[in-house]
Amino acid sequence: MTLVEDMLRTYPADLGGVDRQKLADCIKECFACAQACTACADACLSEDHVAMLVKCIRTNLDCADICLATGKTLSRHTGYDANLTRAMLEACARACKSCLDVCEQHSSMEHCAKCAAECRSCLKACRDLLEALG
Amino acid sequence: MTLVEDMLRTYPADLGGVDRQKLADCIKECFACAQACTACADACLSEDHVAMLVKCIRTNLDCADICLATGKTLSRHTGYDANLTRAMLEACARACKSCLDVCEQHSSMEHCAKCAAECRSCLKACRDLLEALG
Amino acid sequence: MTLVEDMLRTYPADLGGVDRQKLADCIKECFACAQACTACADACLSEDHVAMLVKCIRTNLDCADICLATGKTLSRHTGYDANLTRAMLEACARACKSCLDVCEQHSSMEHCAKCAAECRSCLKACRDLLEALG
Amino acid sequence: MTLVEDMLRTYPADLGGVDRQKLADCIKECFACAQACTACADACLSEDHVAMLVKCIRTNLDCADICLATGKTLSRHTGYDANLTRAMLEACARACKSCLDVCEQHSSMEHCAKCAAECRSCLKACRDLLEALG
Repeated sequence: MTLVEDMLRTYPADLGGVDRQKLADCIKECFACAQACTACADACLSEDHVAMLVKCIRTNLDCADICLATGKTLSRHTGYDANLTRAMLEACARACKSCLDVCEQHSSMEHCAKCAAECRSCLKACRDLLEALG
Repeated sequence: MTLVEDMLRTYPADLGGVDRQKLADCIKECFACAQACTACADACLSEDHVAMLVKCIRTNLDCADICLATGKTLSRHTGYDANLTRAMLEACARACKSCLDVCEQHSSMEHCAKCAAECRSCLKACRDLLEALG
Repeated sequence: MTLVEDMLRTYPADLGGVDRQKLADCIKECFACAQACTACADACLSEDHVAMLVKCIRTNLDCADICLATGKTLSRHTGYDANLTRAMLEACARACKSCLDVCEQHSSMEHCAKCAAECRSCLKACRDLLEALG
Repeated sequence: MTLVEDMLRTYPADLGGVDRQKLADCIKECFACAQACTACADACLSEDHVAMLVKCIRTNLDCADICLATGKTLSRHTGYDANLTRAMLEACARACKSCLDVCEQHSSMEHCAKCAAECRSCLKACRDLLEALG
């Protein structure tokens, strides 16, 4: 059991009918994706052809910020607001999809290939949780 | 002219057909709202009846995080992604609306009254920009 | 009176012996500097000679993140921890100094000139508050 | 090998003489600690005796924000600034120490016990990296 799951398990009040595994997975993906996107933006900055990567860098930066806001929102359960959770998951899924699409165009750079794979995982986790929330 | 408007004016490439004043206003409101919500959450923590304010604190924390992610996304113009911008504005508007609704229930506490007024301004700025983006 | 000052004034418990004006100024500068640095990083990305600006972009990104963490920490007064406040102000002052130094080297670009001026203001506000905290 | 280590390995330029394992460990702890502190603040909000936990909540919130700013700064290597890295590691170590001390006082609540253990791990990772940086 990971720390994210420990923190869910030890929450002292009712978590409602949420699918705990999908919630835990989505929280983990949001934080992991934020780190990968931050690192990928920086790796792009160090490439010789940085001028061709400016859209990738910008998309990485947005994705990192949005994943963190989503991961923090999902880590809170007190006074749960289903509509706000859904709106953030929609925005996060879109950020991951945009970042995935741009990074995949540069997948010969291994940092973009790794980042695209993580964005794909985070996108799936957001969609799975959205579906589970109904 | 404020610094936000200076930074927009000195952006070296084309900003597209965006309504600059609505964009500047929305950026300013997002950062101001994030600060007010952070402070309101903390002020609630120091109230004697904090136990009755836990939903307000949680909603403040979400709103602060989401406003900052939105304000940072709106401050970037390179490789602009209209769909992502709209999704974040929708999420931010919803966060502001939730926070406004909760804070208004406690408007006898002046920090909640001030925070509700700022959330209302930020909500309006998000909606105005959404409408301007079409 | 600005919203930052309103939120300080309506804090329901004792603020201790802090210099309120210096605290309010520092909070405002931290949020303004975070926005300016986010925008300057993005403006650098759109310059033709972006390859010569990668250190500036990276320093802008660090400064934005650190200013926001500092501005949020300073917006909280409950359970005040003087040593943590000082450590964050030291880190924020250093981030602003690094960003100011890099942006000043590119002050023919107006976004870097504006950003350098804001970093200088935020640096001064951090140092003034550090001095006031003793 | 984890994603954090993959992103370090695929960075296209020289990482300097940094101890890669200590750097990777510290990045991972910063993101994990930010999540745990965000969740612990929220768990405290749902405790019946929340009024006795307000300092814990505030310290959790600061620690989460500072850990994220540190984790993002450490994820960037382009234009490395040793003094800024050290200042952020010092601030992060202090935030973790404060949070650990407060959470340990409430270790009969399992979320505080888990959070204290994570803060201790992150504190150690910050100190180990500081020592390795010299």
